[in-house]
Amino acid sequence: MVLASHWVYNFGGSEADGNARMRNLLGSKGANLAEMTNMGLPVPPGFTITTELCNSYFAMGHVYPANLKSEVDVAIERICALTGRRLGDPEKPLLLSIRSGARISIPGMMEAILNLGLNDQTVEALARETGDERFAYDNYRRFIQKYSDVVLGIDQIAFEEIIEDYKDERDILFDADLSAEDWKAIIEQFKAMVQDELDEPFPQDIQKQLWGAISSVFSSWMNARAITYRHLHDIPEDWGTSANVQAMVFGNLDDNSAVGVAFTRSQDTGEKTLEGSFLPRAHGEDMESSSAKPLPLIRSEGSDVKSMEELMPDIFSKFLTLCDRLETHYMDMMKLGFTIEKGKLWMLQARAATRTPKAALRVAVDLAKEGLITESEAVARVDPRSLDQLLHPTISDSEKRVVFAKGMAASPGAASGHLVFRTQDAEEFVSHGRQVILMRVETSPEDVHGMHVARGIVTARGGMTSHAAVVARGMGIPCVTGAGAMHIDYKQESVTVGSVVLRKGDLITIDGSSGDVLNGDVQMQNPELSEEFATLMGWVDKIRRLKVRCNADTPQDAKAAREFGAEGIGLCRTEHMFFQDDRIFDIRAMIIATSEEDRRRSMDKLLPLQRADFEALFETMAGLPVTIRLLDPPLHEFLPNNRHDIAAMAHALKIDEDSLTSRIHAMHEFNPMLGHRGCRLAISKPEVVEMQARAIFEAAVSAGEKTGAPVQPEIMVPLVSIREELEFVKARIDSTAKAVMKEMGHEIDYRVGTMIELPRAALQARKIAESAEFFSFGTNDLTQTTYGISRDDAARFIADYIKAGVLEQDPFISIDIEGVGELIEIASERGRFARPDITLGICGEHGGDPVSIEFCERVGLDYVSCSPYRVPIARLSAAQATLRRHQRI
Amino acid sequence: MVLASHWVYNFGGSEADGNARMRNLLGSKGANLAEMTNMGLPVPPGFTITTELCNSYFAMGHVYPANLKSEVDVAIERICALTGRRLGDPEKPLLLSIRSGARISIPGMMEAILNLGLNDQTVEALARETGDERFAYDNYRRFIQKYSDVVLGIDQIAFEEIIEDYKDERDILFDADLSAEDWKAIIEQFKAMVQDELDEPFPQDIQKQLWGAISSVFSSWMNARAITYRHLHDIPEDWGTSANVQAMVFGNLDDNSAVGVAFTRSQDTGEKTLEGSFLPRAHGEDMESSSAKPLPLIRSEGSDVKSMEELMPDIFSKFLTLCDRLETHYMDMMKLGFTIEKGKLWMLQARAATRTPKAALRVAVDLAKEGLITESEAVARVDPRSLDQLLHPTISDSEKRVVFAKGMAASPGAASGHLVFRTQDAEEFVSHGRQVILMRVETSPEDVHGMHVARGIVTARGGMTSHAAVVARGMGIPCVTGAGAMHIDYKQESVTVGSVVLRKGDLITIDGSSGDVLNGDVQMQNPELSEEFATLMGWVDKIRRLKVRCNADTPQDAKAAREFGAEGIGLCRTEHMFFQDDRIFDIRAMIIATSEEDRRRSMDKLLPLQRADFEALFETMAGLPVTIRLLDPPLHEFLPNNRHDIAAMAHALKIDEDSLTSRIHAMHEFNPMLGHRGCRLAISKPEVVEMQARAIFEAAVSAGEKTGAPVQPEIMVPLVSIREELEFVKARIDSTAKAVMKEMGHEIDYRVGTMIELPRAALQARKIAESAEFFSFGTNDLTQTTYGISRDDAARFIADYIKAGVLEQDPFISIDIEGVGELIEIASERGRFARPDITLGICGEHGGDPVSIEFCERVGLDYVSCSPYRVPIARLSAAQATLRRHQRI
Repeated sequence: MVLASHWVYNFGGSEADGNARMRNLLGSKGANLAEMTNMGLPVPPGFTITTELCNSYFAMGHVYPANLKSEVDVAIERICALTGRRLGDPEKPLLLSIRSGARISIPGMMEAILNLGLNDQTVEALARETGDERFAYDNYRRFIQKYSDVVLGIDQIAFEEIIEDYKDERDILFDADLSAEDWKAIIEQFKAMVQDELDEPFPQDIQKQLWGAISSVFSSWMNARAITYRHLHDIPEDWGTSANVQAMVFGNLDDNSAVGVAFTRSQDTGEKTLEGSFLPRAHGEDMESSSAKPLPLIRSEGSDVKSMEELMPDIFSKFLTLCDRLETHYMDMMKLGFTIEKGKLWMLQARAATRTPKAALRVAVDLAKEGLITESEAVARVDPRSLDQLLHPTISDSEKRVVFAKGMAASPGAASGHLVFRTQDAEEFVSHGRQVILMRVETSPEDVHGMHVARGIVTARGGMTSHAAVVARGMGIPCVTGAGAMHIDYKQESVTVGSVVLRKGDLITIDGSSGDVLNGDVQMQNPELSEEFATLMGWVDKIRRLKVRCNADTPQDAKAAREFGAEGIGLCRTEHMFFQDDRIFDIRAMIIATSEEDRRRSMDKLLPLQRADFEALFETMAGLPVTIRLLDPPLHEFLPNNRHDIAAMAHALKIDEDSLTSRIHAMHEFNPMLGHRGCRLAISKPEVVEMQARAIFEAAVSAGEKTGAPVQPEIMVPLVSIREELEFVKARIDSTAKAVMKEMGHEIDYRVGTMIELPRAALQARKIAESAEFFSFGTNDLTQTTYGISRDDAARFIADYIKAGVLEQDPFISIDIEGVGELIEIASERGRFARPDITLGICGEHGGDPVSIEFCERVGLDYVSCSPYRVPIARLSAAQATLRRHQRI
Repeated sequence: MVLASHWVYNFGGSEADGNARMRNLLGSKGANLAEMTNMGLPVPPGFTITTELCNSYFAMGHVYPANLKSEVDVAIERICALTGRRLGDPEKPLLLSIRSGARISIPGMMEAILNLGLNDQTVEALARETGDERFAYDNYRRFIQKYSDVVLGIDQIAFEEIIEDYKDERDILFDADLSAEDWKAIIEQFKAMVQDELDEPFPQDIQKQLWGAISSVFSSWMNARAITYRHLHDIPEDWGTSANVQAMVFGNLDDNSAVGVAFTRSQDTGEKTLEGSFLPRAHGEDMESSSAKPLPLIRSEGSDVKSMEELMPDIFSKFLTLCDRLETHYMDMMKLGFTIEKGKLWMLQARAATRTPKAALRVAVDLAKEGLITESEAVARVDPRSLDQLLHPTISDSEKRVVFAKGMAASPGAASGHLVFRTQDAEEFVSHGRQVILMRVETSPEDVHGMHVARGIVTARGGMTSHAAVVARGMGIPCVTGAGAMHIDYKQESVTVGSVVLRKGDLITIDGSSGDVLNGDVQMQNPELSEEFATLMGWVDKIRRLKVRCNADTPQDAKAAREFGAEGIGLCRTEHMFFQDDRIFDIRAMIIATSEEDRRRSMDKLLPLQRADFEALFETMAGLPVTIRLLDPPLHEFLPNNRHDIAAMAHALKIDEDSLTSRIHAMHEFNPMLGHRGCRLAISKPEVVEMQARAIFEAAVSAGEKTGAPVQPEIMVPLVSIREELEFVKARIDSTAKAVMKEMGHEIDYRVGTMIELPRAALQARKIAESAEFFSFGTNDLTQTTYGISRDDAARFIADYIKAGVLEQDPFISIDIEGVGELIEIASERGRFARPDITLGICGEHGGDPVSIEFCERVGLDYVSCSPYRVPIARLSAAQATLRRHQRI
């Protein structure tokens, strides 16, 4: 860290020390005040104490560097010179505001302290100067209250009680009815109480006030709420906060005074209309008080409420020009804070406005069309994660909603699925091809993997910033939180609202945009995507190098993905197909068979079903490549595990129940993740490969004839770690291809490749590439084996890891670039060395994660593959990664 | 492959085309016949068809290259010129022997065909020439029998029946009583039968005979027995065999004729005395027949059997000179085959003699002392694996043996342990620190891992070359096979002999040197190691660079290892200590505790016990480094898993049985290998680390004071994959060290390091080395994660892999140099880059495997660590690896 040559940066007046690019040093607020100063806008003078001072303050054990005091003194002198006022001056006292200001807004940080500089003397000067004694003493008591709360740590309630008691004794109902004398009396009681609590008086020394306030700003960086928020949002502690000290201006001096806040475009839609509100003759704090009724800046159609445009036309038009200047200057939609003091406009805040994802999209596209930014900049402006909110299906308007419970709309989109209460159940259901909604009283980091596989999340407790809400939004999964009417019984695995009981496995639907939890399954409709979305995606596709495919096992998923712009299927898992009722019997018969002939008989029965699966998929993906992974999971997953089902299976297969039980028992594995699965099955039971290959090739021919645009089937061999494994399986695929081509009299353009999902495969990539036409990085398993961590079991200690600071992020969410990433780089280099035109892709869940996609771009993969609804996110991320790679953003 | 310029290499006469160094091309027999020719020894002329021809023969589909025939013709001409005989000549016919000859002897290969060249005409010439018609026709019928069997594929029994019938009809009892006329008549019946079976006559054309025999030699390379043997012994198919064609000489022509075989030193002890036997007036085949009574070469003391020395003193003394010449020339103990034809000595075979491990050791040491070879060469001569047989404990002579069953002495040494019948049970017992004897009806590749952890193996079926015997000898584990009286009941997990029943868990003892299976545990005695052993090990230690440590958890093991030359402990596993009865309660209490305080309370109780463990170990290893691994296995392994034990534990801990059951259930892991274990425990429960570190440091101080030679404790953190994990644990170790040093007023010289047993740790070695003073490669887990294969589950498919040719050797036995090896190389380089003086070692089971040790030398590790009884093997392997690295062998 290079330390700043000084700790204090001035703004206001004609020139500032900082500018908007110095946000990391000055915080957002301080940098923008400096920027506006340099633009020549009217900013009340002040200074920023840097974020580096904050870090130094904590590093040195809550002590300031020796030179800080003198730097602050000089900066105060500058404000005095510009305002003609002095701290504590009995005639023209300087009053200050102190505000925290981090790089981004962080809840829990210290709020503003206003009117610092008031004491028993200066309050009188303020009264004289404004000619309003009540105004002066009201401000003074507000200052004492706030300062005592924030700096001295005295509970607000004590002060409120004094005021309430005072009013009660005098039968006064409203604060507004208290006179200057009343406030003076109350202030005396305030001071007495402070003396009582602290054994020393409320500070009359303004230097003491000032340094108390500054220290409170910095200390608030480490308060519990701020720390929690930073953890939840992955914000490093060493960002620090700055402190901004600024001369007060007053929006409540006369009828030509006001305070206001403005957005240069609509926060909701992004439309180019000035939004915001203002309050004539008001204090900044009043904007947020419930009793105040802010007026609009521009009168809305049909309304009879007057607007700033009508009430203060001159200042309004000046302000409008200023808005345009700021948008042009910042090349963005802005949020502005301003105060009008006796007819003079002062700018107190300017920053890029937060906006809904929809608005963000529109603003980016509009700014590019207006010529303020380039198309690339527009692409760079939209957060890929935010797109997720636009892409979820919603409940069809025609549906009658049977609401089971209502909670908060914590993460948008609607989803249906089978109700489960535990992460393990979520994973088990999903591994059997059934979608789930995960329901918890509240979620914790242990539930993250269950949340990851769920279609939606619903909790009985927690609000918009609960773990469930934050994580769900991060993952782009619909979520309803705090549905308090639900009584969840984990033991019974049921949930009750009134007399309605739902159990594990029941279908439910949640609407994360409304907070509704519905009983049963409902009709969904796909989101209508805006014109701006299409425009932006057009630009995205011109920029990006990485192709985007989807992970899809069904024609429905494939169709959705294709509509979202998928350029092929990167992963079709065939195991889900085998769990269907019409074939599980034959699968089980195959597993239990002891001879190759018996196995082949079962496979022959499955062939037409499997072929039909692929035909439908190939028709949907006509003309695009489709990567099909051969059967992957351990076979015991297909077998029943309870007595009843075993008995049924024994009966169906006409075998002895006891011997079936013991055979199922014998198939138990200690570490199924590392067991008899993937290509290991293919080597033990080549009949399965031959059946799957035949189904694929036959389907490719017939679907190709039907659509006129054949797919290119890419057959992917899972869990290879030894070159010979791939060769063994490839030989069977090739001979099947030859046979089918001969039988059908039709050439088939197909490719054979492999997953790279084990460290040894990555290291042996040169040899493996001699037989593989493509690699697809299976980063889920690769992460598990590289770390030696089972994702299913990690929940037990990942929380301890994060708490102990051992791990900063879960490597199953964003790719571990140092470890897993190095293996991907090694495999890519070696694979390309052996086969320069090898196709490289990624099909783990990381394929839809923006951070991971940036890594994929850097390594030069050919495509990423992700779930259908993440395809646009991946496209946008890919484009941004390209821009970043070429340092164009 | 570079093809030889010609396929045929001559020997005999005054000069040969080949020599002893061409063993790979000519096979052992051919190369040595050529070498003896060049030494000027009398060798009947002949030629060798090379092993490359063998490979070509199979590669081209059982077809010979065009130029082979003419090369063979030229070579036959040469024999004719040297012998003055011609093939098929009616006066002086040339008779030939044809023998196979691979690089090493391979059972199942074609045996010799003698007297090829006999037919209805030449047999008469042989009769005339020898003046012994019966001799000629007897040879002819033997040739027909053998040739028909080996080349024509007609069952020997048919020929034997003809002879028996012939004798029965004539009331003749013995073959010896059959006259020339009888044999002539029998030969006619032989020929008629061949005609009958094959629809063509027995070949009279001698060229046809010759090529039939040659093809049989090559074809026998691919017969089932040879293939099985090669698989069992890891012999590559492309070694091939050669065919040796040689002029016949006869040891049965007169009283000055004989055949014999000699060993230049004792096969059993290696003592320098000529051993062997000879048969005057006999055929080569007779040496192996049961009716012949071979005579000794030198009369043994007190015997009244005459010797060759006495019967043929001139030839004997000539032969003795020749033995010395051959030993000097070959610089080794030799096995020699010879024939004396009418007083002339012919050498038919010379090769390094097979010998017992004991003899091998003595011969190597003696040859070096005699100055024939250097000390380094002596070291290179001894197969490290063979040492194993000298190192096993034996049953104490004072013990009365209660023999339960008797089988074959299939692999030497004695061992006691708990009886188990299944690999899983073997592994489970061992993981709880209990030694096992694995009993099976017979073993298969699926049992290999169980065999690996067992102290001994016993089977009811199978012989000296059964799977159990071969694998056990390879692993150096005592083994008894074919104890047929045992009735094994897998279901009941019991074994019965007569009325005695032993069950799983019972103690038994096997003696692999006698074949005894004993009921119960018996007193063992350590092997007495010979003077030669000590001499050789002295040379070994001068040569080797790698240090050798041992894996030992108990003072007993440590003591044994130290006697075998261990230079420290490379792996002390602490988990076994926790299974002992006096502490399992506190361990369980710790696991079940929900607060840190409760955990600390349990740890405090364990501290003195754990400290005593280490004190005993440190005293035994005084002055040497001791590496202690912190607790590694998942904690649920310490918990009971059946109702009864759970109830007992609940009672002892005064908690509810149901809730204990559900807590144990909740600790179940899907993939325990990848679960909550290793340093992950330390991060969740730092109290355990602190207790273990304290026990180690306190023990180091007190043991050091007692012995005056303190150990250097090296604390090893298991399962690290992230730098921060190690830092977290190291911080706790360091602070504990500081505390103990302060309390005891004593400096402790300790080091902290880590296992490298996960791919990510290997990749991150540079960063990890910043906190690690040593790395120890845990190649068991590293192999599991690099391949993504659980060793416990691999048995299910490893057999399929070997059958399919996908895997040549089990990577859990010898290190996978390409995959796991590359990670070790990467980690070594990166670790040294960050910390040039880092200590690198290996402590997986590969640490005692000679092939793996050679790899460790090549990568430049500092030490290997292995089980106590493998320490001398590792020392010798290390010395050989050093020699090989510097190309001194």
